[in-house]
Amino acid sequence: MMEAWRKKAGSAWERTKRAPGLACRKMWQVGKDDPRRAIHAVKVGLALTLVSMLYLLEPLFEGIGQNAIWAVMTVVVVLEFTAGATLCKGLNRGLGTIMAGSLAFLIEFVAEETGQVGRAIFIGCAVFIIGAAATYLRFLPYVKKNYDYGVVIFLLTFNLITVSSFRVSNVMKIAHERLITIAIGCGICLFMSLLVFPIWSGQDLHNSTVNKLQGLARSIEVCVDEYFSDEAVTEVREEESDDEDKSCDEDPIYKGYKAVLDSKSIDEALALYASWEPRHSRHCRYPWQQYVKVGAALRRFSYTVVALHGCLQTEIQTPKSCRALFKDPCIRLASEVSGVLMELATSIRNRRHCSPELLADHLHDALQDLNKAIRSQPRLFLGSNCSQASNMLAVAAAQARQEKEREAAATGGGGGGASLLLSSAKTDTSALREWKKTRSKKELYTERKVLRPQLSKIAMLTCSLEFCEALPFAAFASLLVETVARLDSVMEEVEELGRVAGFKEYKRDDDDD
Amino acid sequence: MMEAWRKKAGSAWERTKRAPGLACRKMWQVGKDDPRRAIHAVKVGLALTLVSMLYLLEPLFEGIGQNAIWAVMTVVVVLEFTAGATLCKGLNRGLGTIMAGSLAFLIEFVAEETGQVGRAIFIGCAVFIIGAAATYLRFLPYVKKNYDYGVVIFLLTFNLITVSSFRVSNVMKIAHERLITIAIGCGICLFMSLLVFPIWSGQDLHNSTVNKLQGLARSIEVCVDEYFSDEAVTEVREEESDDEDKSCDEDPIYKGYKAVLDSKSIDEALALYASWEPRHSRHCRYPWQQYVKVGAALRRFSYTVVALHGCLQTEIQTPKSCRALFKDPCIRLASEVSGVLMELATSIRNRRHCSPELLADHLHDALQDLNKAIRSQPRLFLGSNCSQASNMLAVAAAQARQEKEREAAATGGGGGGASLLLSSAKTDTSALREWKKTRSKKELYTERKVLRPQLSKIAMLTCSLEFCEALPFAAFASLLVETVARLDSVMEEVEELGRVAGFKEYKRDDDDD
Repeated sequence: MMEAWRKKAGSAWERTKRAPGLACRKMWQVGKDDPRRAIHAVKVGLALTLVSMLYLLEPLFEGIGQNAIWAVMTVVVVLEFTAGATLCKGLNRGLGTIMAGSLAFLIEFVAEETGQVGRAIFIGCAVFIIGAAATYLRFLPYVKKNYDYGVVIFLLTFNLITVSSFRVSNVMKIAHERLITIAIGCGICLFMSLLVFPIWSGQDLHNSTVNKLQGLARSIEVCVDEYFSDEAVTEVREEESDDEDKSCDEDPIYKGYKAVLDSKSIDEALALYASWEPRHSRHCRYPWQQYVKVGAALRRFSYTVVALHGCLQTEIQTPKSCRALFKDPCIRLASEVSGVLMELATSIRNRRHCSPELLADHLHDALQDLNKAIRSQPRLFLGSNCSQASNMLAVAAAQARQEKEREAAATGGGGGGASLLLSSAKTDTSALREWKKTRSKKELYTERKVLRPQLSKIAMLTCSLEFCEALPFAAFASLLVETVARLDSVMEEVEELGRVAGFKEYKRDDDDD
Repeated sequence: MMEAWRKKAGSAWERTKRAPGLACRKMWQVGKDDPRRAIHAVKVGLALTLVSMLYLLEPLFEGIGQNAIWAVMTVVVVLEFTAGATLCKGLNRGLGTIMAGSLAFLIEFVAEETGQVGRAIFIGCAVFIIGAAATYLRFLPYVKKNYDYGVVIFLLTFNLITVSSFRVSNVMKIAHERLITIAIGCGICLFMSLLVFPIWSGQDLHNSTVNKLQGLARSIEVCVDEYFSDEAVTEVREEESDDEDKSCDEDPIYKGYKAVLDSKSIDEALALYASWEPRHSRHCRYPWQQYVKVGAALRRFSYTVVALHGCLQTEIQTPKSCRALFKDPCIRLASEVSGVLMELATSIRNRRHCSPELLADHLHDALQDLNKAIRSQPRLFLGSNCSQASNMLAVAAAQARQEKEREAAATGGGGGGASLLLSSAKTDTSALREWKKTRSKKELYTERKVLRPQLSKIAMLTCSLEFCEALPFAAFASLLVETVARLDSVMEEVEELGRVAGFKEYKRDDDDD
């Protein structure tokens, strides 16, 4: 008993001892991932110190007085990470305050006529109605997207003014002072976010689009490489994917498309903030919404990549011997697709048009290659009887080898035939052995999960079903071709982006990376 | 010139006239979509009126005074849509205020010793350091997720107290009053959100999980139905999908999985808020995180559905005659999959375990059916030469029909053979005509987009490439089977949810819907 307690206490102590180190490492990591975060933190500290001066320095305080508090509050709430977000919030705060002030004065003007009790009732009703209406307004999607914060500030200011006007006589003076201090607070925020190491939402959006393109390019390449690589790697991946999301983070394929899948809300927020930023005003209105469209096209593209990744993880696998036949054209097509994505990424990064003729021709050739490879192996898709399927695959593989041998040695068909028969039989056996291995592994899996036999029954089903074994490969190839079709829409959107954003023309020696 | 102006002004006037009606309809729609929004708006109005009483009623005001303002502010900022969110924000506000107050007093205590100038410098430095450190802390993912609002309040309160303590002597009294008013504000918020028509995040999460399951079930069913339905419908869909997202909203397939794709952040927020809610405390800790896991499994499932949907939209299509051969088993499998999803949805809604034996057997049968159907058409996958491909399809179709005829009429093979040859030829021609039609449509498409020939070149490529025509169908079938594999992981997570949440046992006559 004592032992157990001591052990527990010991491990708890160990964890407590390690906690500060872990926290420090995490803190460091956050700053290392994006050093602008540290800069932003320093900026907020500076802005707060500046605004505190209003209180701390005698001459400034005499001019403004107690209301300097409002400037402090404004700085804390308005100063955001990017310039666009700060502008958006500042404007929302300004608009909300002014509108609330006007409305409050209107109500004050009407309420003045009545007596003290009538006035209290009138103010109470106004607070109720305006409060309910403003809250309801926040549910409108358009308002929620653009002016949510403004409505909150409107409600806050309106209530503060209306309620406090009931007890205070010189409301006008208070409102005047408050407006000035809020303006000072906003001014400090704008100065800090626009002029001192500004961080632009637009730049973030631009960079994240480039990164997403590059991530997808890497995903596709690794995915196809892995599909045709050694079985061992694939199995490790499979087992890992059974675990939590944590292990998925390590997967380079998952890492590539993860950012794209959940990018919708981030993209939209960045585009919204970016539209407030004055930096790109020489283009009249920089087309940030087009970036959102590129993001949507990329998301649609990434769903196909996810399905392609699913082909790696699925329990029904095309035998290796079959896959090997199409290795080269598939890898070539994948590298062409990822090449196009990389070129698109480079073109966006350098704000220039891409060189599409070049790319399209290569893609064309790669597609033709795959087409030819599939046509040259007609018997693979002949799965009349599944007990014979692996035999047929072996025959097809043998045929391919036969052709090669013929080309190489140019001997007759007779002598080669016997050795071919041998090799085909060998392929057959090895395929069978592989098959059995996966089977027995599945059965182990089943025994471990005795508690839910019906679930593992399905799992066994999907892997023991004797589908024509080439079917999964057909899906893989088809999805790969599908990526080309989706790539088309991505290219369209990027092209459109180049057009509306006035990218410069493509020159061969333009890129410096 | 005048004409154009008048026209413009006229249309602008028309739009202005229509705007209020449109706004009203939108407002009504927002309330109709979720009537709890209207209830929430009334609740906020009531809470604000209640808190205004502190100011408006003479006896209450005498006790609290000017600081009642802080109660108003608390209500505006803390009262959120769901009980969990309100509790989370209220606790954050409370914690932030108390910690900031303690720290501010500590600094006050240290600064007291020095003179006026030294004190100002000391306060300035403290404001800078605390401000920068707190802002940096907000970038830590853990803090951002759970305590972002608390840190903002901490910073705000700390600055207000520290700065104002420089000029005011009785800080202790101010802090005391402020704390009381904030507590009153929080109390009103908690009363409103927990006791008056409470809206639970947990219930929302529960319902949205059920809805997502049902949406996916519908998606799959419609998707497969459409794949095997008349060409006309499919083409309309294709054209629509070229447009903006707007038309996509009409698509029942897209509608089904849309909510699932972008559900990550919503799910996580709801689960976070739900974990604050006291309602399910009899289960010790209700496993809201398991709902998030179910959501993640559903998202993985939905990516396969998106890929399946992509098979409908892609420009490479398997000829109808070929698809028709597998119509029944595919539709059966799809309806089984959607049936399982529906059963899972019902089981979660009624908080009971699902009846898996029943479901798994049907799924098994449907898979076997599809397997048999594919095995019985071996020649479809024999695409040795693509100019012969449609011929072969026709032959395969003829074979199938031949078998049927043999069964039906039991005549000899001679007489039937001639008519079969005729019908096969017909099939062939119609297939060719279809093919040509799509080609010419593509060419029109090309001419319209003269500006980007390279893009449409790829588009043409992907559709004119003479891949073995059964390939796209193989992908479709394989993806359909893949959904079954993914369904397995969804079932696992739902089963786990049932276990940890203590769902009741399944009884046949349990469901009332």
